[in-house]
Amino acid sequence: MSTRIVPAGWARHLEPSALQRMLETAAAPDVLSLSLGLPAVELFPREACARAASDVLDRVRTLQYGLPSAPLKSQIVQLMRARGVDCVEDEIFLTSGAQQGLQLLARLLVEPGGRVATDGLTYTGFLQAVRPLAPRILTVPVSADTGPDLDALEARLASGERPALLYAMPDGHNPLGTSLAAATRVRLVALAARYRLPIVEDGAYSWLQYGDAWPAPLAALDRGQVLYVGSFSKVLGPAYRVGWIVTPRHLVQPLSILKESIDINTATFSQHVINRYLDEGHFEEHLRQLRTAYRGRRDLMAAALTRRLPTGSRWRAPSCGFFTWVEVPGLDTTALLEQALAIGRVAFVPGAAFSADEVPRATSCLRLSFSNVPVDRIDDGIARIVSAMSYVRPRAERAAGARVATL
Amino acid sequence: MSTRIVPAGWARHLEPSALQRMLETAAAPDVLSLSLGLPAVELFPREACARAASDVLDRVRTLQYGLPSAPLKSQIVQLMRARGVDCVEDEIFLTSGAQQGLQLLARLLVEPGGRVATDGLTYTGFLQAVRPLAPRILTVPVSADTGPDLDALEARLASGERPALLYAMPDGHNPLGTSLAAATRVRLVALAARYRLPIVEDGAYSWLQYGDAWPAPLAALDRGQVLYVGSFSKVLGPAYRVGWIVTPRHLVQPLSILKESIDINTATFSQHVINRYLDEGHFEEHLRQLRTAYRGRRDLMAAALTRRLPTGSRWRAPSCGFFTWVEVPGLDTTALLEQALAIGRVAFVPGAAFSADEVPRATSCLRLSFSNVPVDRIDDGIARIVSAMSYVRPRAERAAGARVATL
Repeated sequence: MSTRIVPAGWARHLEPSALQRMLETAAAPDVLSLSLGLPAVELFPREACARAASDVLDRVRTLQYGLPSAPLKSQIVQLMRARGVDCVEDEIFLTSGAQQGLQLLARLLVEPGGRVATDGLTYTGFLQAVRPLAPRILTVPVSADTGPDLDALEARLASGERPALLYAMPDGHNPLGTSLAAATRVRLVALAARYRLPIVEDGAYSWLQYGDAWPAPLAALDRGQVLYVGSFSKVLGPAYRVGWIVTPRHLVQPLSILKESIDINTATFSQHVINRYLDEGHFEEHLRQLRTAYRGRRDLMAAALTRRLPTGSRWRAPSCGFFTWVEVPGLDTTALLEQALAIGRVAFVPGAAFSADEVPRATSCLRLSFSNVPVDRIDDGIARIVSAMSYVRPRAERAAGARVATL
Repeated sequence: MSTRIVPAGWARHLEPSALQRMLETAAAPDVLSLSLGLPAVELFPREACARAASDVLDRVRTLQYGLPSAPLKSQIVQLMRARGVDCVEDEIFLTSGAQQGLQLLARLLVEPGGRVATDGLTYTGFLQAVRPLAPRILTVPVSADTGPDLDALEARLASGERPALLYAMPDGHNPLGTSLAAATRVRLVALAARYRLPIVEDGAYSWLQYGDAWPAPLAALDRGQVLYVGSFSKVLGPAYRVGWIVTPRHLVQPLSILKESIDINTATFSQHVINRYLDEGHFEEHLRQLRTAYRGRRDLMAAALTRRLPTGSRWRAPSCGFFTWVEVPGLDTTALLEQALAIGRVAFVPGAAFSADEVPRATSCLRLSFSNVPVDRIDDGIARIVSAMSYVRPRAERAAGARVATL
């Protein structure tokens, strides 16, 4: 095929990285994947959604272009209020999933070439969302135990750094699994307010809580300083592409203008189906079932790690979300992935994949996802990964246990 | 509500224009709208789509994230081949509607501050899609009878202008209603090839043909020079947000990277529903019914215009799409809209709304949409618009019949 059409500069020399190539291999059907943060589709309420789809298609307007669904925005207001976030319908902005929320907020807040702040290890989708703006990325050191180093953040802000936004994942951090303590949340929001630093709070996993205490979202502490990004993807299905932003009202108009230029509106069919499903009143019960199911998978993975990981390894079962973060001091986990795929037909994501900038971080860490692994394969998956370790370097060299999780 | 969060520069002084405010008024429930290019939702196959939705929700994978649906891409290949566009599955890129196709192609091809070419009167969604790149817009003079002035375009190209893309609507131009003659298409594509000018062909309306001859899309003439943007929005429902680009293969990877950063993927639920619907084999018959229905509305509008428009007016019934373009020499159609809303509770879009740049064009023209008007209201709508004319300026002054449609 002709290559007469030449793309703009940014697109001319794109090559998938070695890691991306490995992750493509990881998608092969015979590979057991502990890599991607996919929800367990068998847990979604498909029958109820089929009824909802059929119901809404009875109404002629369902398939038209439309303003964001007012009933769905009301439902989201109720769901956010239940989590302590005081808001009204006019402050809910519907998006094509949380990823579009991040993209819109990046374009709303960041000047081209501006600065954004995020954890040193972060969700790669956030980095993709800001990349077109070519920002300078300020990284905050982050611990898998306690979250971002707020002393370090405060020092940067006090020295005059003024990022256009701080990207935060207080519930079930991707990739670290960390959930922030209530006191940490209070201090983070107070810091942001003092230095007028907008926080983009990613709440994509926040309904999937496995412990007893559920600290309130950052947006519950200071609505004027925090833009909350939510999504139905992890709890009803990514296939609908319905998420939302809880935003101060003065930002709704520029968000609407941006959104219209990108895709006119969020799939109104999906909006109607989800609204009708929520109307049936079984959502809370569904969330309880999801939590029970994922908590069970988390515990199975924890048991396997306890049993199988070499001495000196560090890890911690998350209280929210899909990810367990593991460090095996001295082990090159990118090399391990190659062996795990070749020998064990099992996949995970090496820690280095989550470095927020060009600095290689977490090279001896790996992210394991328990969300979409058959229950009876979790132990086997961990066993295969651990077996592959002996092909990377002799066990003896892997002993020294540096403090891992601060990155 | 606090306004502590300050958006980036582009978003700080957004104010809706007077025209936008009028169009918001036009959305009031008691206003008869001949303004927006909305499809007639009552013509969509909702029962078949409800069956399809129910069927696909029987399969557990339907709600997962997913690669673009391979079966849907195969269906699109067949549909494009039926229109003379020779392509394969790997050249189909699925998008969240045609609007996202335009947005992705703008970002793929245009450097920030670069140049884009389009008709002097054009689809405003294209202008919105390119605006974030702050391009210089090269306008091509365009006639409602014959389309873009290719002599003028050739002169610009020969003088050294090199736009990053030319946006073209060969079938059922929005707003002019024009469809290009076969010979014009051949010359346009040859020009583009000679000067290596990529054409973005908007085929959103191209299934809605009312005549006997259906000239082939530009992409049928030169696949290497033309990126075709298609959509199911006008024929199955905008609510699904499913469109596609037919692209040379070397552009698929950068498009995929862009798309992932924007919204991860196109609503897979919608993809599955549309694929299942197409599988049933009634799509061609459905298209025939749509053509018959819209042709009927077009003819009713033509009859009303013939009967009611003042002498000296110019208009032409389109052979494709939703729009009839009318010129009433000497009439200020923006002022007319104000009167039509106030007195007649009827809406249209004034020609000036479609100016591709800051030059006010087509100030005595209006775009009338017949697509979503109840059949028994079309004549009444035209009657009310014509009545409102007498409140704008005395009929006597409106006589002089300048050659209107070349803009």
